[in-house]
Amino acid sequence: MSFNTFGHLFRVTTWGESHGPALGATVDGVPPGVPVSEDELQLWMDKRKPGQNRYTTQRQEADLVRILSGTFEGQTTGTPVQLMIENTDQRSKDYGDIAQKFRPGHADITYWQKYGIRDYRGGGRSSARETAARVAAGGIARAALKVLAPQVEIVGYMTQIGPYGIERTRFDWGQINENPFWCPDATAAEEWAGYMDKLRKSGNSVGAIIEVVARNVPAGLGAPIYAKLDTDLAAAMISINAVKGVEIGEGMNAACLTGEENADEIFLGNDGQPVYSSNHAGGILGGISTGQDVVVRFAVKPTSSILKTRQTITKTGEAAEIITKGRHDPCVGIRAVPVGEAMMACVILDHILLQRGHIGGAVGETRGRIG
Amino acid sequence: MSFNTFGHLFRVTTWGESHGPALGATVDGVPPGVPVSEDELQLWMDKRKPGQNRYTTQRQEADLVRILSGTFEGQTTGTPVQLMIENTDQRSKDYGDIAQKFRPGHADITYWQKYGIRDYRGGGRSSARETAARVAAGGIARAALKVLAPQVEIVGYMTQIGPYGIERTRFDWGQINENPFWCPDATAAEEWAGYMDKLRKSGNSVGAIIEVVARNVPAGLGAPIYAKLDTDLAAAMISINAVKGVEIGEGMNAACLTGEENADEIFLGNDGQPVYSSNHAGGILGGISTGQDVVVRFAVKPTSSILKTRQTITKTGEAAEIITKGRHDPCVGIRAVPVGEAMMACVILDHILLQRGHIGGAVGETRGRIG
Amino acid sequence: MSFNTFGHLFRVTTWGESHGPALGATVDGVPPGVPVSEDELQLWMDKRKPGQNRYTTQRQEADLVRILSGTFEGQTTGTPVQLMIENTDQRSKDYGDIAQKFRPGHADITYWQKYGIRDYRGGGRSSARETAARVAAGGIARAALKVLAPQVEIVGYMTQIGPYGIERTRFDWGQINENPFWCPDATAAEEWAGYMDKLRKSGNSVGAIIEVVARNVPAGLGAPIYAKLDTDLAAAMISINAVKGVEIGEGMNAACLTGEENADEIFLGNDGQPVYSSNHAGGILGGISTGQDVVVRFAVKPTSSILKTRQTITKTGEAAEIITKGRHDPCVGIRAVPVGEAMMACVILDHILLQRGHIGGAVGETRGRIG
Amino acid sequence: MSFNTFGHLFRVTTWGESHGPALGATVDGVPPGVPVSEDELQLWMDKRKPGQNRYTTQRQEADLVRILSGTFEGQTTGTPVQLMIENTDQRSKDYGDIAQKFRPGHADITYWQKYGIRDYRGGGRSSARETAARVAAGGIARAALKVLAPQVEIVGYMTQIGPYGIERTRFDWGQINENPFWCPDATAAEEWAGYMDKLRKSGNSVGAIIEVVARNVPAGLGAPIYAKLDTDLAAAMISINAVKGVEIGEGMNAACLTGEENADEIFLGNDGQPVYSSNHAGGILGGISTGQDVVVRFAVKPTSSILKTRQTITKTGEAAEIITKGRHDPCVGIRAVPVGEAMMACVILDHILLQRGHIGGAVGETRGRIG
Repeated sequence: MSFNTFGHLFRVTTWGESHGPALGATVDGVPPGVPVSEDELQLWMDKRKPGQNRYTTQRQEADLVRILSGTFEGQTTGTPVQLMIENTDQRSKDYGDIAQKFRPGHADITYWQKYGIRDYRGGGRSSARETAARVAAGGIARAALKVLAPQVEIVGYMTQIGPYGIERTRFDWGQINENPFWCPDATAAEEWAGYMDKLRKSGNSVGAIIEVVARNVPAGLGAPIYAKLDTDLAAAMISINAVKGVEIGEGMNAACLTGEENADEIFLGNDGQPVYSSNHAGGILGGISTGQDVVVRFAVKPTSSILKTRQTITKTGEAAEIITKGRHDPCVGIRAVPVGEAMMACVILDHILLQRGHIGGAVGETRGRIG
Repeated sequence: MSFNTFGHLFRVTTWGESHGPALGATVDGVPPGVPVSEDELQLWMDKRKPGQNRYTTQRQEADLVRILSGTFEGQTTGTPVQLMIENTDQRSKDYGDIAQKFRPGHADITYWQKYGIRDYRGGGRSSARETAARVAAGGIARAALKVLAPQVEIVGYMTQIGPYGIERTRFDWGQINENPFWCPDATAAEEWAGYMDKLRKSGNSVGAIIEVVARNVPAGLGAPIYAKLDTDLAAAMISINAVKGVEIGEGMNAACLTGEENADEIFLGNDGQPVYSSNHAGGILGGISTGQDVVVRFAVKPTSSILKTRQTITKTGEAAEIITKGRHDPCVGIRAVPVGEAMMACVILDHILLQRGHIGGAVGETRGRIG
Repeated sequence: MSFNTFGHLFRVTTWGESHGPALGATVDGVPPGVPVSEDELQLWMDKRKPGQNRYTTQRQEADLVRILSGTFEGQTTGTPVQLMIENTDQRSKDYGDIAQKFRPGHADITYWQKYGIRDYRGGGRSSARETAARVAAGGIARAALKVLAPQVEIVGYMTQIGPYGIERTRFDWGQINENPFWCPDATAAEEWAGYMDKLRKSGNSVGAIIEVVARNVPAGLGAPIYAKLDTDLAAAMISINAVKGVEIGEGMNAACLTGEENADEIFLGNDGQPVYSSNHAGGILGGISTGQDVVVRFAVKPTSSILKTRQTITKTGEAAEIITKGRHDPCVGIRAVPVGEAMMACVILDHILLQRGHIGGAVGETRGRIG
Repeated sequence: MSFNTFGHLFRVTTWGESHGPALGATVDGVPPGVPVSEDELQLWMDKRKPGQNRYTTQRQEADLVRILSGTFEGQTTGTPVQLMIENTDQRSKDYGDIAQKFRPGHADITYWQKYGIRDYRGGGRSSARETAARVAAGGIARAALKVLAPQVEIVGYMTQIGPYGIERTRFDWGQINENPFWCPDATAAEEWAGYMDKLRKSGNSVGAIIEVVARNVPAGLGAPIYAKLDTDLAAAMISINAVKGVEIGEGMNAACLTGEENADEIFLGNDGQPVYSSNHAGGILGGISTGQDVVVRFAVKPTSSILKTRQTITKTGEAAEIITKGRHDPCVGIRAVPVGEAMMACVILDHILLQRGHIGGAVGETRGRIG
């Protein structure tokens, strides 16, 4: 990963600020012959779009994505796909009174220190609007996966909001799209709604945990040592705004387990192929996919823009108080769900391309066979 | 990061297997004029070396590092530094009976599936011996930091072993080198010793959490969006063998906090420069260092090689039982401490070079000034 | 260099096709605080713009460049600069009759074989329109050089068109902008005009040689072995459409020289710094700039689209004849001059950033001093 | 290409100096299951080895290559292959009297300026000994090509030495191994022998042109725009020590041709696949291979170390005279032939891997079919 680009063969470079004319992604390494359309991409964009319910920012952005290059007659050509999203609801004035003050918990102060530039219009490049470009790029990755590995399914959902986690025994895939939190536990979703209503009214915000699962990922993806599938997934997720932790499988909890508890035992399935007694590994051993579900989890910190008075300083070195008005997500984690899915799609596709480049064979085929 | 290389300007490529003639690191992008010696590197190697106490593997490796290139008259020349560590205590016979079976929790099965090669001599490239090369490379990074940013201090320690965490109120920097666990809490260290003795005798293993802190890191390091300091640190840490989770500052716990609790307030220090009320951010905002301590934490899963009977399968597709004898670390997390420090050193140095390349100015100088 | 990106720290990714809605460049690694404006970039664009005289294609393109990101209040912010150029005069119908046939000397057949896509609308991604994006990116590089190394001057010119070369004794910097060929030899320029008029009327085309010189480049740029300044310059130039050869200093002619003739002798200048008796080396020794003029030369093949009947085949495997009507440059080399300059600017800037990243010091300062 | 690494998926990093303990190459991205042996690599090493006849340096180096990693039971494992060549005949004393003086035409002065280090022991990293590592890496590439694309043949030869070129009508593949110049024209080889004998005795040196051809390269290799096959080949060749110019197909001569002369007409072969009337393009159109012979040519400047008195300066800024005694190649171009072949092998293999990664399909299969 270098600066504003991630990926090895499927390479995504995002560009743009929250308050410039547009932002987008330059997507290189897209395989040719993949059917894509702006309409199909828009479905993913709409999942992330602000203003869809009372738990997300009320900024109104159509987030319409345009394909400027890399397709011909509805198919990718193998050349770079440029995806552009125009900014339409910028209201810089909302941010006027923070031009001189650094918002605590924001990148204002570090961007100022690093670049000597204070783009006060809403965070500039550090704004979570950048994630719109990721979702667009993820749409391209999904379209390519549909052709190359149609069995792969990628689903993200929230597992915790503030102190309230889901109950795994109530986990229901069917619930994820049925509530504003992408929550697989209907009971928790109700609990969260009540909690969030209070929180929002108090002008406060809260963190969250998102889990993204990729199912039916072929065994063999991932290239040790520094392009392990888990390394690339962790980097992809923690590069998302406000993410402070990332886990594969058992994650931090692996510390508490013994070897006997943790190592997934291996059995033979009816097809003579390996099945595992459990998935503590999150579908990855030695940086390479096992064929089990690939499970990644990440924590999103609470939005730092809150309606609470906070202590800060100004560019000119004076103490100050700040309340960030504007229009903000009380839990930015909610809109991080489709972003996490997009990053998963990009990483999986990238590793499918790497795998067939380095090792060869059809997608999903393993070079070493069992039995 | 690509395959066996990490870093942008300071680039480390590791190579070698646990049971081949040697392993090492090719370190490119080292600034010229840095005093280095094999003796100095050896100090770091010795921290990671196996067989130093009863809580680590009894494999005997001198882990002598040789500098084959890139220095002249005791200083780096600016050209690639080749670091070679010969393998001396290989005892392949210990591994003989696992040649056909896949060890649960190990990379055996995924390497076989991916590469169609079964290097049964102890994990081959997936062995944690690879981390010796990281420690050697980290020694070069430390030597360069001593010249470029001598104020930077990097210290790693364990904060949890199995279910037993340290008590933060008992945290004592002076204790870290006083016990075999690099534990900053003397009471916890004693508790751990008792726990580990029992565990070792039972033939089981356990996971751990390591925290690595870099102090006095200049503000302004890190390049959004996909070369954020936290992204690169997370990738560096999770690329270490057996790491399943990584956290910056509050980490996964950020999910539980409100915005009011989480955002570190900013004040003016006596020198007119920012000081923070707290460090939930782990020293990084928007991917860029704030000047506070950079705090990274990672979980290491329990060693999968244990003296317990486990179910597995063979290459030829038959069910089998396995007990992994050999000489293994009951808690591989202990020896991950110097590895985490080495990765921190490499990432910090790399970002110092990137910063002066992209932005210019002396090391530690910020382009945007406060006051 | 990887796919559609070049550069190390100053990284340019171009995108877009000749007949899509737009094309452009994503420019990453731009130092912050560089004044840039669309008007200033336009000056460079206009040098390359088609239809300016009777020796270039009559396609009418305003080639207006828009800055979509990476600037704030007229200065770069340090984040990616997106440069977009809309295509306005596309006339796909001109290309209608070649949809099934492969034009000899064009990328039609290889793109078809590689991608299985035949974008018949004028070459798609392989069109020389891509070079507009390079010129825009080069404008950003020039703006940055103006701040970082204002003494650097970059000038390109033609030295040969078909069999007619310039006479070095008549070389006059002042003539370069005075004729439609960027020719430094007024006599040759007249000769070329007569030759080109005949050639154009006959429907044929011709090749050319372009020389690009960078003056006052600081000593010390270039990073051996695979990021030598000459390696990067050669790669940059030969990546331009239709370039078939590239030379540094003496170039291919170095084969004919003896060591005594070729090695530039070194003397002391009045300032105690090295001066050279000659510049056979083209300003680069061991991949590193000497401080002399950096001299690169490249040959552009004749435009393959000509009004002559040529033998070819069709996609369906039939023999066919083809005449390429459309609007084409009789000597595409002419418009390659500003493209070569742009590439030189990008490479020099990139190496200035690399140099201060890897070695440190102010721009232009050398670490090793003489005297 | 970045610093000491080249290649996209097949990545070679070289390290080492002429007078350190060893030098070598770290080869990453090698496909698994490729049979390799030190003996087989040695055959290529021996082609480049010094001291084989009176036209090359009399330095005696066995140039024995050791494989330190990345193989198991005689096959590559898919992990990095470390190739080490120990330096045995270093005789630093030969260089003693040049420790203070910069040799004209050498990298001494620029390395000093850049790095502030003067490794006077024979050029250090800038020595042509570095090319031994390329040849070793090329041997790995050749071994992989033998498995993946066994029909590919790579042959290099000299076409010019000083002012004496070969006569194409006398070209005979069978002659190349029959004379000390890898010359395909027996008559020219005799002429060269006489010329070189005189030159050597006079203490002078001379330049040369080398041509490298890859035959039976599948159509479709190369990834526009900045990873064109010609871009990567040009960069690979010009990165070789002393190379000052590089050409694809017609090369610089393309400037002299008209479009009618230059564009290779396309016909149908008996197998219904394209055949070309000529190969002005050097087997590459739009950066992508056509299936014709890939033809690259490069000029090597004369060795700068000659037994002639030359003017120079010292580190301390004094005028001086220098005669470079030591043991030098009177025409370093001779030993550049196997180096050029090695670079061709690396680039072709890399693009085969890229092609199957990005596009898929079996090696040699094209996605777009004709007929």
